[in-house]
Amino acid sequence: MSEGEPGADVRRDANRTMSKLAIGVLASGSGTNLQSIIDAVEAGRVPAEIRVVLCNRPGARALGRAKAHGVPCELVDHKTFPSRELFDERVVAVLQERGVELVCLAGFDRLVSPPFVAAFPNRILNIHPALLPSFPGLHGQRQALEYGVRIAGCTVHFVDQKTDHGPIVIQAAVAVLDDDTTESLTARILAEEHRIYPEAIRLYAEGRLRIEGRHVRIVDPPAGNGSLANPTPRC
Amino acid sequence: MSEGEPGADVRRDANRTMSKLAIGVLASGSGTNLQSIIDAVEAGRVPAEIRVVLCNRPGARALGRAKAHGVPCELVDHKTFPSRELFDERVVAVLQERGVELVCLAGFDRLVSPPFVAAFPNRILNIHPALLPSFPGLHGQRQALEYGVRIAGCTVHFVDQKTDHGPIVIQAAVAVLDDDTTESLTARILAEEHRIYPEAIRLYAEGRLRIEGRHVRIVDPPAGNGSLANPTPRC
Repeated sequence: MSEGEPGADVRRDANRTMSKLAIGVLASGSGTNLQSIIDAVEAGRVPAEIRVVLCNRPGARALGRAKAHGVPCELVDHKTFPSRELFDERVVAVLQERGVELVCLAGFDRLVSPPFVAAFPNRILNIHPALLPSFPGLHGQRQALEYGVRIAGCTVHFVDQKTDHGPIVIQAAVAVLDDDTTESLTARILAEEHRIYPEAIRLYAEGRLRIEGRHVRIVDPPAGNGSLANPTPRC
Repeated sequence: MSEGEPGADVRRDANRTMSKLAIGVLASGSGTNLQSIIDAVEAGRVPAEIRVVLCNRPGARALGRAKAHGVPCELVDHKTFPSRELFDERVVAVLQERGVELVCLAGFDRLVSPPFVAAFPNRILNIHPALLPSFPGLHGQRQALEYGVRIAGCTVHFVDQKTDHGPIVIQAAVAVLDDDTTESLTARILAEEHRIYPEAIRLYAEGRLRIEGRHVRIVDPPAGNGSLANPTPRC
């Protein structure tokens, strides 16, 4: 079974888990999830190297955060492309040129096209501010408040061809309070996002995520003693 | 604003909160949620009196549980009615004859018809084994497992004219484990159901639930010192 198909083993090649995971982070806005990833990488909590922060909006704070931490960044302004396909072609080219293994969408406000997903099969993560499958699409926090749920949360998932749909890696729940505003609920969810996104990237970097149909299994780390051969046979 | 409309104050009349809440429990199967309600009432944790356990299946264990605790019960076998409307008419009649203020669906496997809902506006609670709006309908636990969520749960909500849709009173979340089966996840969710359903009934009985649009607010208990006049003006 090859990577990208349902049931694919998305663990990193055992020979590569010696090295840091090459990630690319795509952001459009303030970049707080980007910041949580930068912080986790800098602190050594995630064995990854951010090869590029790619941003589609010239004024985004995410760009400043990358520069402040000496992380390579690149502006690919979607407004300068005549179509989503051409924009995505350029984004994919940048990521491939930088040798990115795992793409992390972090508040990226463009839908990714099927060719983009196909270029990184089971190698794109996204974070969504709701307990999927509840409240997909824009403004998950506001949708949750308007619906009147008592428990909201966030989801890190692999990206597939449907929006906010791919296999789920981690979710976190937060209580909704009677006096919550969109802002207060968003802040409480964001705190959990900043915890679970680096955690999901760490698990991927350690070769511990395995997709089986719609399920992501978290498997044991590769055997120790310097040997990274994977004790579990691939399917 | 009258009861039954969106924004209605569903708190019990202040003059009635002196007395125990008259509830009717509708069950079809093993009746474990019924048991949790019986236990909570018997232990004095919920100021309610179960006026009737109404069951639509002759062999249901729920009937035996009611009898074992001396709780009035009645079999209304849906198979003996030519239509859902006539069945529901009989169910409503039984509940009204018994003076039921609040109807608690507890594993009741019939959809309630619009006239039934209209007969008890904002006075029917249901418990659903999923974090609504995720996984409405049958087998919420299995749906959650098949989808691959990391967090499942249960929901107590008021019943409105759409299935598994009305305003939410309480939700509880449980982790989904990698080795969960439908049975193990169902058991973990059930433990939370048994906690939150009596809690929701207690809040209703104490006059502390208020529906505002899709939102259920949990308000302070009526003033103490023996006075049960409600300090908050009705809208």
